[in-house]
Amino acid sequence: MNNKSALQIARAAYQPKLPKALKGAVAIKEGEATESVADQAEIKKLFPNTYGMPVVTFAKTCRAKSLPAMNVGVILSGGQAPGGHNVISGLFDGLKAMNKSNKLYGFLGGPSGLIEHKYIELTSDIIDDYRNTGGFDIIGSGRTKLEKQDQFDSGIEICNQLGIKALVIIGGDDSNTNACVLAEYYLQKQCGIQVIGCPKTIDGDLKNSQIETSFGFDTACKVYSEVIGNIMRDANSAKKYWHFIKVMGRSASHIALECGLQTQPNVCIVSEEVEAKKMTLAQIVNDIADKVAARAARGNNFGVAIIPEGLIEFIPEMNILISELNDLLAKESDVKKAVAQLSAASAAVYASLPEAIAKQLTLERDPHGNVQVSLIETEKLLIEMVKKRLAAMKEEGKYDGKFSALGHFFGYEGRCAAPSNFDADYCYSLGYNAAQLIGSGKTGYMSLIKNTTKSSDEWIAAGVPITMMMNMERRHGEMKPVIRKALVELDGAPFKFFAANRDKWAIETAYIYPGPIQYFGPSEVCDQPTKTLLLEQSSK
Amino acid sequence: MNNKSALQIARAAYQPKLPKALKGAVAIKEGEATESVADQAEIKKLFPNTYGMPVVTFAKTCRAKSLPAMNVGVILSGGQAPGGHNVISGLFDGLKAMNKSNKLYGFLGGPSGLIEHKYIELTSDIIDDYRNTGGFDIIGSGRTKLEKQDQFDSGIEICNQLGIKALVIIGGDDSNTNACVLAEYYLQKQCGIQVIGCPKTIDGDLKNSQIETSFGFDTACKVYSEVIGNIMRDANSAKKYWHFIKVMGRSASHIALECGLQTQPNVCIVSEEVEAKKMTLAQIVNDIADKVAARAARGNNFGVAIIPEGLIEFIPEMNILISELNDLLAKESDVKKAVAQLSAASAAVYASLPEAIAKQLTLERDPHGNVQVSLIETEKLLIEMVKKRLAAMKEEGKYDGKFSALGHFFGYEGRCAAPSNFDADYCYSLGYNAAQLIGSGKTGYMSLIKNTTKSSDEWIAAGVPITMMMNMERRHGEMKPVIRKALVELDGAPFKFFAANRDKWAIETAYIYPGPIQYFGPSEVCDQPTKTLLLEQSSK
Repeated sequence: MNNKSALQIARAAYQPKLPKALKGAVAIKEGEATESVADQAEIKKLFPNTYGMPVVTFAKTCRAKSLPAMNVGVILSGGQAPGGHNVISGLFDGLKAMNKSNKLYGFLGGPSGLIEHKYIELTSDIIDDYRNTGGFDIIGSGRTKLEKQDQFDSGIEICNQLGIKALVIIGGDDSNTNACVLAEYYLQKQCGIQVIGCPKTIDGDLKNSQIETSFGFDTACKVYSEVIGNIMRDANSAKKYWHFIKVMGRSASHIALECGLQTQPNVCIVSEEVEAKKMTLAQIVNDIADKVAARAARGNNFGVAIIPEGLIEFIPEMNILISELNDLLAKESDVKKAVAQLSAASAAVYASLPEAIAKQLTLERDPHGNVQVSLIETEKLLIEMVKKRLAAMKEEGKYDGKFSALGHFFGYEGRCAAPSNFDADYCYSLGYNAAQLIGSGKTGYMSLIKNTTKSSDEWIAAGVPITMMMNMERRHGEMKPVIRKALVELDGAPFKFFAANRDKWAIETAYIYPGPIQYFGPSEVCDQPTKTLLLEQSSK
Repeated sequence: MNNKSALQIARAAYQPKLPKALKGAVAIKEGEATESVADQAEIKKLFPNTYGMPVVTFAKTCRAKSLPAMNVGVILSGGQAPGGHNVISGLFDGLKAMNKSNKLYGFLGGPSGLIEHKYIELTSDIIDDYRNTGGFDIIGSGRTKLEKQDQFDSGIEICNQLGIKALVIIGGDDSNTNACVLAEYYLQKQCGIQVIGCPKTIDGDLKNSQIETSFGFDTACKVYSEVIGNIMRDANSAKKYWHFIKVMGRSASHIALECGLQTQPNVCIVSEEVEAKKMTLAQIVNDIADKVAARAARGNNFGVAIIPEGLIEFIPEMNILISELNDLLAKESDVKKAVAQLSAASAAVYASLPEAIAKQLTLERDPHGNVQVSLIETEKLLIEMVKKRLAAMKEEGKYDGKFSALGHFFGYEGRCAAPSNFDADYCYSLGYNAAQLIGSGKTGYMSLIKNTTKSSDEWIAAGVPITMMMNMERRHGEMKPVIRKALVELDGAPFKFFAANRDKWAIETAYIYPGPIQYFGPSEVCDQPTKTLLLEQSSK
């Protein structure tokens, strides 16, 4: 019996590409001193040791530097994203290239592995088994936040015990913020442990003037676009269903937008636009219903709508309703009585919701008694409300068609897919580059690969001080230094391209079928970055 | 703006492989007279003209036969399956190879296109646009059944008008049965119109001693297995969820079983086994709960279960409950009163169902007032019941773990995927071969490609009289000649392999990650048939 698929076996042999700068001996170039993107004084005060450091880039050199052997620890933090294993294998290879005696330890189950001293040594046998594979199962991940002094001190203990001189933390915006806090603390303590971050999130919301894209976004969007394209082809063949497809992405709609750009659906909602335009639920529903009716008028009683997972929380009136419900239900356990006390506006929104959703909102609350927005099946909510709206339009003679709709949700299907060539190369380079940052004695830096829409030879290998990306934001009632989350920019090239085409896509059937990720074929099929990245970079 | 993806463009250039026998001039070899698989006397009486014809095979010859030009019509019938477009392009190329003046007409929207005289001529421009693509959108499909004499006569009218001498009907068991009825009728009428069938269904339930596999099954199962594998890798990385994944396949569990063989889940239910063993819903639930508990005991509070879409209808007690409900609700509109009259056994089953499911069963009935089994979200039903069972086991000290479960359903994601190399080659060959059957003057035959686990050069191109696959079955109260549906055989090699391994797969985490369908890579990655087909053929 096999324990690996043919593709797993073939893919293990893939050698990810590196930027030319990282092939062979590497020299570091330091740029100008940096400032944080905002709140410079506060950030500087909080990070006296790691503030203001220069952006660094690496270049090929002929003089190989000999470094003493050292041990490094790596941690996966937060949700899975395709390519995590390649960051680790790149880091491993980068360390071994510097000194064959270097060792890599993996902390198990996320940051808690560091705190609780749970780890394994990552030997070449283990690493080889995970090259170019999806998932975070090599050492596991976790959501424990590294933010307290006793956690940091526990980390020092195990690092000293294992002779670890540097930690690489692979995570999203919060994990990288915490990596920087840790770097600062270790510098203050002069304990000789460097901390380097790597930008991960399939949601695509960790990017800025320095980071072109977070890893995993490419692969995940391609998996979702594959199945969305397949559903579109089905819709266009059967010509009898509307498919409402929810995709992952709670706080930003990058995934929905990218999938929209790849597949050209009839409807694609971008939460950031909903919030910016202060759209109501009724407006969203009416807009979709109008498109359904316009297609029906041309004889097309089918279509595809893409919905971002976090939509509900971006609709201002829903936010107000939910916060009112939370307050009222905290004092009044009788749901009917609580609902009776809603403000007039919220009562109207509540009354407009399908019964099952309204029930879900009030009955299934979390351990703190809060309404669980995440339980709402947004795709079904919209289907029900669009159906109701269309019935009303039919009565008014404004709609003449059939509306049968099916809901889908894609999230877990893409988080652990085997990385695309782009993510395999990008992640491997991020890890390999992290080893260079360590070798150069840097701490409080994020590993950075830029110029990613060009061929990998031209990729720029760099490091950016994490403080440079920070500003102060209110979190749980306190002002905290955080990396600013990148939402979809309504004046950015990807959204503008979408906005310029969506009316045509709504009426016409202009579906594109991206098909499954290809690893072996022609370069234009296998090596394309996301539309988002291409549009962003070409507009610069 | 592109209107095709890079993969669509690259894939259009793929030249599907043909059996060696079909390359160049072709000679026909006729075998012995055949008998139907059962009920020979009845079938012979119903099909006096098409009964008993021989199986035919094709072989290469050096003497090219010159045939007069003729026109052919093609119809897609029933649900989408990957490769339909390749059957049509193979048919087109096969016809053109015989005589460049041959024309192919496509009837639009399924069999109703023939009856209502809606058609297009399929020119090479159109055909080229659809080579190796998924979907049935080239001419559309439909579920109208060709079974009445006035429909047949309307077909004669349009065929005469267009000079059509043969019809190719691409469909499942029912559509091929009807194709044979049509062939018989046209022979009786001596109207000179041949009818040829092609075996299509993603469900895989159209196979027998003659048909090795129906087309589309390969691709669809690979798409489902890709996303199931991705979810498994996520489960094994996050280690906190059980995923209950329902897959398409109402009347047979071939898809669930094939996905199980490809991915090695912790649980995979096969409806045919449930029916054969007369399993109760409680037994199924308890069995899953036991596996959850056994994994929890080893610290693994995660897993993956694959559920066939049609499961509910295979549970004897559920069938009884549903038929009782249908009878009672026909007479008694008050649901409570109807439920009160259930038999004791059915009342107990009804009481065991989660409230939402019980409501769905009684409230949302079809236009005939019947309970809509298809609306039941089986994956959610099982999650709720397993959760309840585990709570009871916890009380008894038999379970100590956490159970968080998520449901998924995959169906529309696979029906219109671009065909795998296997389906692209197989379908193209089926279509090309259908042209040979037409050229040989055959009618009432199904196009057949055998030896499909070997390289395409060795594939056998053949034709089988449809009557050979028939028996008499009761349908809507009447005995009808039908092609026997192929259910999962519990003594067949695929199920036996699964049964021999499932206990190990349940406890261990032995997941295999098949990854996405590859079109360009090494042959062992790109050209593998399904595990079902490999096991079936190697056991012969």
